[in-house]
Amino acid sequence: MSQALKVALAGLGTVGGGTAALLAEQAELLALRAGRPIELVAAANLEKPKDVPLGKAAFFTDARQMVAETSFDVLVELIGGAQGIALDIAKAALAKGRSVVTANKAMIAHHGVELAALAEANGATLAFEASVGGGIPIIKTLREGLAGNRIRSVMGILNGTCNYILTTMRASGRDFADVLAEAQKLGYAEADPGFDIDGIDTAHKLAILASLAFATPVAIDKVACEGIRHVSALDIQYADELGYRIKLLGVARQTGQGIEQRVYPAMVPLSFPLAHVDGVFNAIVTEGDFVGRSVLEGRGAGARPTASAVVADLVDLARGRSVPAFGVPVTALKTQPAAPNEAHASAYYIRLMVKDQPGVFADIAAALRDEKVSMEQIIQRGRSPGATVPVVMTVHETVEAAMLRALARIGKLAALAEPPRLIRIEAPTA
Amino acid sequence: MSQALKVALAGLGTVGGGTAALLAEQAELLALRAGRPIELVAAANLEKPKDVPLGKAAFFTDARQMVAETSFDVLVELIGGAQGIALDIAKAALAKGRSVVTANKAMIAHHGVELAALAEANGATLAFEASVGGGIPIIKTLREGLAGNRIRSVMGILNGTCNYILTTMRASGRDFADVLAEAQKLGYAEADPGFDIDGIDTAHKLAILASLAFATPVAIDKVACEGIRHVSALDIQYADELGYRIKLLGVARQTGQGIEQRVYPAMVPLSFPLAHVDGVFNAIVTEGDFVGRSVLEGRGAGARPTASAVVADLVDLARGRSVPAFGVPVTALKTQPAAPNEAHASAYYIRLMVKDQPGVFADIAAALRDEKVSMEQIIQRGRSPGATVPVVMTVHETVEAAMLRALARIGKLAALAEPPRLIRIEAPTA
Repeated sequence: MSQALKVALAGLGTVGGGTAALLAEQAELLALRAGRPIELVAAANLEKPKDVPLGKAAFFTDARQMVAETSFDVLVELIGGAQGIALDIAKAALAKGRSVVTANKAMIAHHGVELAALAEANGATLAFEASVGGGIPIIKTLREGLAGNRIRSVMGILNGTCNYILTTMRASGRDFADVLAEAQKLGYAEADPGFDIDGIDTAHKLAILASLAFATPVAIDKVACEGIRHVSALDIQYADELGYRIKLLGVARQTGQGIEQRVYPAMVPLSFPLAHVDGVFNAIVTEGDFVGRSVLEGRGAGARPTASAVVADLVDLARGRSVPAFGVPVTALKTQPAAPNEAHASAYYIRLMVKDQPGVFADIAAALRDEKVSMEQIIQRGRSPGATVPVVMTVHETVEAAMLRALARIGKLAALAEPPRLIRIEAPTA
Repeated sequence: MSQALKVALAGLGTVGGGTAALLAEQAELLALRAGRPIELVAAANLEKPKDVPLGKAAFFTDARQMVAETSFDVLVELIGGAQGIALDIAKAALAKGRSVVTANKAMIAHHGVELAALAEANGATLAFEASVGGGIPIIKTLREGLAGNRIRSVMGILNGTCNYILTTMRASGRDFADVLAEAQKLGYAEADPGFDIDGIDTAHKLAILASLAFATPVAIDKVACEGIRHVSALDIQYADELGYRIKLLGVARQTGQGIEQRVYPAMVPLSFPLAHVDGVFNAIVTEGDFVGRSVLEGRGAGARPTASAVVADLVDLARGRSVPAFGVPVTALKTQPAAPNEAHASAYYIRLMVKDQPGVFADIAAALRDEKVSMEQIIQRGRSPGATVPVVMTVHETVEAAMLRALARIGKLAALAEPPRLIRIEAPTA
């Protein structure tokens, strides 16, 4: 059998531990699939963990030192963080002509193109299947499986923490803050949850997918990002009644005016596959001009699924299978303008908390009419003069700018007890 | 730019025409993704079609002659059929050290291992992404994306014709024969529909997936196959009432006693992703020991989706990415026994057409009790003494052998107006 692929592993946390376990447990199978053994020659972590099978690997407490002093073919970077040690060692390895496999979406979102150029210049490969969608092979699918297609759109449920919170809110009828606190206690959400619930993690992943889909440099600064803090139990209840589920989506579309990249909580109709993706599962829907709609679903996080993705990249490298990091060489990535979000048309769900007094509804209807917003359904119940009641409506496809103008006017009505809530309705296009 | 990948295309029917169109329309994009142009140098078909863009390709009416006389890198075989011309030209190309890309599931199911061995012996590649699941990159996913996993099971909706018929039966309440006739008129089903509706096409695809999943030689002769002719409008109506959809599934499982490969119509709970895959869409659910459950869904047939899969294989070849046809070298494929189907345990739906007379139900209940079959739900309505009424029940997980013994006894009861109908309930395992 050929020479082993020598792996240096930086970071022995959840995913690093899972990766070491996978390499140990499946060594025989991997050697068959990879055509040669995949050998862990070195590992680095601040402390040496007890329960991670490191075999004969040299152990370092300093990842930079490991990269400088070890002879390896591939660096597996699982430390995380957009910069700092992770970026330093990735650059050092690529500069030596060694390949890098990483699960680090923040680093790829912010420095992916720079790293890809460094890889190309040094005859190395940069691979990051584990950075998006955990165990789901979405990077490989976009880059290879759908290589014959112009991709029109890619959208997905990309953050398991948010999906767990929204799924639990629906199942229990409880409110956001309550479910978040429980998720933190259970370890499903971080003590500082902003990265997940404000949509930043989803934005990182979306920017990577958009680059692969549209052969354009990663543009994380162009992602419009809205999280789930404002999703209320009441909205979830109305979504159910109207035949929708609320999901935090990352949505990227190729439009005539450039590329749209947005993260927002959306109402998804039950007929759309994403509506049924619950708990910690992730799913991605792509639209290609030849293949039409494809859906990939699987576990979006966790030690073992993410390790599965890391090792898939290692098997590719062991077999000598290589592909430009973003599907085409860095020099062929074409910058495109960001499409103006307000030019996008969709249907909307609107919830108004209204003091029930004469004439209010006429004012609301006039604001919508003047912006040519056409109502589809209205739900109002439990009228009691003088009290605050929810008025919920869905409206037909409308350009977002017009919708926002109408809502701004409605928001100024004296009868509005709180600002209007708007949730986009994401309808399938195929 | 490097030298073009020279493609000889055999068969210009639906998929062949789509492939030629894709190569022409996306030439620029493909050259970027493949690192070099993909050039159609020759095409063969019984008649020269008018509307297929063949560019400067040499045209042959005899595919064997094309393969013998043309200089090419890859033969794309889209003629079909397990043997005959398709097999002859595939062998001829591989023997010359030329790679073969095919959509031909019958040929791969019956001769895939032989062809893979020929490819390995001659330093060529055999690729067949388009043979299963149309545009869904399930072959690549099993072989590369999930390479780090031991696969426990793979199951799916693999035949668009059957799924269209079952979806339409449910939507319209009409019976099988009626919907089949309409599907034939619309071109969704063949004049001779047995290949699809008796499950043979699904069996071919399942055998290919099982080989990839379990690193075992394709064993098409070990697939137990049951089609959808006996699925009635009544069963579909009861499925709805019980919270299931009826789908024709191909199911392969690694068991302690060997590999189980079966094709049958199954009741799928609404909580399982396959329940929502409608019309001509296909979907495959895999269970890997690290990744857990993954689901891939997309268009399972048609010119453009299937061309997408053919061209994905061509881009891999152009990039020099290669992988053993069944994931591991042919010599590493390990034959396993076929698991005895009757040892499999599942839940079941049973429909009995019973003459409503005293004591019948006691006899049925006794037969079930004696085989330790435990009932979950029973539906019986509209009793009218002396008339025939459906008695529908679901039973808890039971070993199939016991279930069949109980049904054999029930089938002999004088009160049974027709043989008992059994449909397996396919519950998610993760």
